[in-house]
Amino acid sequence: MSNRLEGIAASPGIAIAPAYVLKHTAYVPTRSAAEDPAFEAHRFREALAQAKQELQSIRDLTEARLGAQKAEIFEAHLLLLEDPDLIDVVFERIEKERIHAEFALYDVSQGFIDMLLAMDNELLRERAADVRDVSGRMLSRLRGEAYSTISDIAEEAIVIAEDLTPSDTAQLDLQVVRGFVTEIGSRTSHSAIMARSLGIPAIVGAGEEVRQIVPGTTIILDASEGRVILDPSPEELDAYRQKKEQYDRRRSELAKLKDQPTASKDGHTVELAANIGSTEDLQKVLDNGAEGVGLFRTEFLYMGRSTFPTEEEQFSVYKHVLEKMDGKPVVIRTLDIGGDKELSYMKLPQESNPFLGLRALRLCLDRQDLFRTQLRALLRASRYGLLKIMFPMIAVLEELEEAKRLLQEEKAKLLQEGHAISDKIEVGMMIEVPAAALAADQFAKEVDFFSIGTNDLIQYTMAADRMNEQVAYLYQPCHPAILRLIHMVIQAAEAEGRWVGMCGEMAGDETAIPLLLGMGLHEFSMSASSILPARALIRDLNKAEWSGRIPQVLAMRSQADITDYVNKFLRSEA
Amino acid sequence: MSNRLEGIAASPGIAIAPAYVLKHTAYVPTRSAAEDPAFEAHRFREALAQAKQELQSIRDLTEARLGAQKAEIFEAHLLLLEDPDLIDVVFERIEKERIHAEFALYDVSQGFIDMLLAMDNELLRERAADVRDVSGRMLSRLRGEAYSTISDIAEEAIVIAEDLTPSDTAQLDLQVVRGFVTEIGSRTSHSAIMARSLGIPAIVGAGEEVRQIVPGTTIILDASEGRVILDPSPEELDAYRQKKEQYDRRRSELAKLKDQPTASKDGHTVELAANIGSTEDLQKVLDNGAEGVGLFRTEFLYMGRSTFPTEEEQFSVYKHVLEKMDGKPVVIRTLDIGGDKELSYMKLPQESNPFLGLRALRLCLDRQDLFRTQLRALLRASRYGLLKIMFPMIAVLEELEEAKRLLQEEKAKLLQEGHAISDKIEVGMMIEVPAAALAADQFAKEVDFFSIGTNDLIQYTMAADRMNEQVAYLYQPCHPAILRLIHMVIQAAEAEGRWVGMCGEMAGDETAIPLLLGMGLHEFSMSASSILPARALIRDLNKAEWSGRIPQVLAMRSQADITDYVNKFLRSEA
Repeated sequence: MSNRLEGIAASPGIAIAPAYVLKHTAYVPTRSAAEDPAFEAHRFREALAQAKQELQSIRDLTEARLGAQKAEIFEAHLLLLEDPDLIDVVFERIEKERIHAEFALYDVSQGFIDMLLAMDNELLRERAADVRDVSGRMLSRLRGEAYSTISDIAEEAIVIAEDLTPSDTAQLDLQVVRGFVTEIGSRTSHSAIMARSLGIPAIVGAGEEVRQIVPGTTIILDASEGRVILDPSPEELDAYRQKKEQYDRRRSELAKLKDQPTASKDGHTVELAANIGSTEDLQKVLDNGAEGVGLFRTEFLYMGRSTFPTEEEQFSVYKHVLEKMDGKPVVIRTLDIGGDKELSYMKLPQESNPFLGLRALRLCLDRQDLFRTQLRALLRASRYGLLKIMFPMIAVLEELEEAKRLLQEEKAKLLQEGHAISDKIEVGMMIEVPAAALAADQFAKEVDFFSIGTNDLIQYTMAADRMNEQVAYLYQPCHPAILRLIHMVIQAAEAEGRWVGMCGEMAGDETAIPLLLGMGLHEFSMSASSILPARALIRDLNKAEWSGRIPQVLAMRSQADITDYVNKFLRSEA
Repeated sequence: MSNRLEGIAASPGIAIAPAYVLKHTAYVPTRSAAEDPAFEAHRFREALAQAKQELQSIRDLTEARLGAQKAEIFEAHLLLLEDPDLIDVVFERIEKERIHAEFALYDVSQGFIDMLLAMDNELLRERAADVRDVSGRMLSRLRGEAYSTISDIAEEAIVIAEDLTPSDTAQLDLQVVRGFVTEIGSRTSHSAIMARSLGIPAIVGAGEEVRQIVPGTTIILDASEGRVILDPSPEELDAYRQKKEQYDRRRSELAKLKDQPTASKDGHTVELAANIGSTEDLQKVLDNGAEGVGLFRTEFLYMGRSTFPTEEEQFSVYKHVLEKMDGKPVVIRTLDIGGDKELSYMKLPQESNPFLGLRALRLCLDRQDLFRTQLRALLRASRYGLLKIMFPMIAVLEELEEAKRLLQEEKAKLLQEGHAISDKIEVGMMIEVPAAALAADQFAKEVDFFSIGTNDLIQYTMAADRMNEQVAYLYQPCHPAILRLIHMVIQAAEAEGRWVGMCGEMAGDETAIPLLLGMGLHEFSMSASSILPARALIRDLNKAEWSGRIPQVLAMRSQADITDYVNKFLRSEA
């Protein structure tokens, strides 16, 4: 293989570090007679003890670093090591069938996994993943190999993986992980969004060659060019160390804009806010000079645990975010699960097209207890800052009306219970379903604000899954159809005196920003790391000029024509 | 259980007949020691012979009734009965492990199936389904039970099933099948569309209670009310026989409109066309007085076989349709596979959201050889009638341009080869992706016509899978957002002097028709069985009045408001 790989630059930056290959073993033992079953039983006992020790230390490390909740999963794994249906049966089969420990373990685990999967229950499916994980760990031990898990990483490394799930990224230790490279994924897959939110360089979708990377290989990850260099020459190392320095220099120049206003050359002010996925992102948000939080994704509160978060738990998180933002606006989006985001402890139906299924507010209206708990926590937290509540995935007015009704009911109950609730709460909605954009004039009468979720709006308007590389050519933020919808939404909101934000990836896109500014978008919410570059750009733009260009842009035939047009101006103005 | 079930009325009509339960066995044998392995081998040999006889007679019947192509699948099944990897291994294991034939057969088949599935290859996956089918048949024989397949039905029956796949419906014998009831599905699922196209009453999505229906039970299927009555009383039988008579009477009144023009009260003429899925539907199209074919779904040409249809095969089918329609317009849509429609012999990628994936024209542009073959067959057939070629699933202009370029290239080649090609071919596109509707003004400059595919347009605009019952409440053809898009498309087409048709379910919907007429839709294409009722309705409407009501309708808040409004007029005008 060549020493270079190309992928999608998911999060900017340059990193140089050894590869840590996160690989769950694909080794499949075959049935083979064992000469000495007692020896096999002994080997299995040893592997059990080692796996137990490993898991205990990972659990303790995780607890110390990330808290008891994140460590719970390893507690579950430890319990599996004592499960008679798994462990005793392995011992029995080794003895009775006189087979090797590897095959006995593999075969019993597989039967267990198949049984769990056959139940067609989301909870048991997760349990099957746990069995696979624990059995893989023991199998590695039996074979004298290391079993990789992401929380095991102890030294500076660039993580190499097929993909990182949300629970993988929850375990990433930023003290040591310098960046990551994945085989699959796109700019809007979870791992990519997490990388931007964590501010570490990442390349996704680098293809099957990723599997060939040998653990420990020195790697240069240049996310500005979507390039990975394996085992670089001294010259390459040198060149990229210099490039990294330049990059760091540019970042420190941008840092000077941290407390500057976001105003165009002709004095038009907009708000630059940050998208966050957990409270851990807050420091980064403030460090990057965000003027608010434009999207707080609350689903991360519900993930990596085994039960729903209580009203109290949620309240304290929302309160913390509001206090930390110190009076700056904070838009909190109600739960957006379903689609590609699932909860292990909540049985969701298997859907053929989850992106077109029972997700987000649709699910919340279906499971009202869940939704009411979140609304109560939000309302109670409201007096600690400037809260704006936002509902996702609304398609029709009836959904909005029902959500608002539940909010009013919980508010009335809380007031009766003697709780204080801010009277400045704004209530808004995401515009991410084309139907909502097309009827924005009617929605504008019923909400305080819109926030355009372009990732989904583009995927639905183009009918192209944004995670599917085969139709990636249709992910066109600057296509005239998309810009027309956005324009329609902003016009509709202005007619009713509402403000419009945008919290999709597009809000931080340098080609889109001049157009959005020109159309009159009020708030741009993006990954914290994009805020300062966006501020620098907007300060160089003339809002009135861009407004004048909009009619011409909306009449263009293609994204290519539009980006050419925009870039021509950006280059001449730079 | 109650003697009544409710479901979704998928295709109108009333049927009274015994239940034929189509059920593939779910029996799972467990390992058990056999006293006499020789006897087990004998039993298995007997079952093999019986299965062979059954399959031969089904093959012959299918060939006689539906042609050699449809019979091919049973040829494949017969070959499996001679496959040493399956059959010899069963005999071996019976002998060696001294186990019952049932378990040996089950376990070997299962291993075979798992292996095929593990290959992650669409062709082998289909093959796995064949193995499951054949093994199920032999298992039934071993247990002395009948193995149900839909082509076995020999007497008048209402088919009861979990769902009917396209290949099931291909085997339906309309001489004996009076209707069907399925457990799952929606108005727009394949089985529902097929029922309407075959003109037999059907109820889909009737729920799990369907599983309790005992074979042979007398059943009343009243699709006008979405009701199934099991084991009816003599009074019920009497009442429904009367109702069936009335229904048949109304149908014969409608039949008088067969050769009447489709003109509104105030003399505005539109075209009523039919959607068809195969040449077998053509007689029904003519019998119902269609003025053309508004949608010929060519994918059925590619299904239920083991190789792609050749240019010659396609040519003769297209020629036949054009000739049969005798100069009336025939809109033939190029291949729309992917999504929920797959081909056993074509490896398609597994997608997380197939409705948002590489389907229809996207796939055809990716596999150009396949597409060019179809275009050549279409061009060559063009001189036998009035052909209009239509491209599905276009989102952006570049896709249309590429499709038109390939069409031009093939046309030039054919002319050079000396073929005659009509100079009256129109080239159009489906409007089913929201982006295409939003940019219809630009597309209108590049095509001769549009046909609005509302099934998909609604699903994408609402971001709600039309096959997913959990979000069925969002399938709202008369939602203002949908009507605005349709209006936008018709306006854009008129500005360029193009005609606009509609080939989704909505075109035959009695509430939608007045609005579509009012907006100026030129062509309505629907199931053949909906044409005469639609003609009767349109002849009662005043086009100018409905045009006058459109601005008010487009400003309404919800589908409920709009349908109330329309129905109020329909009732008062009736």
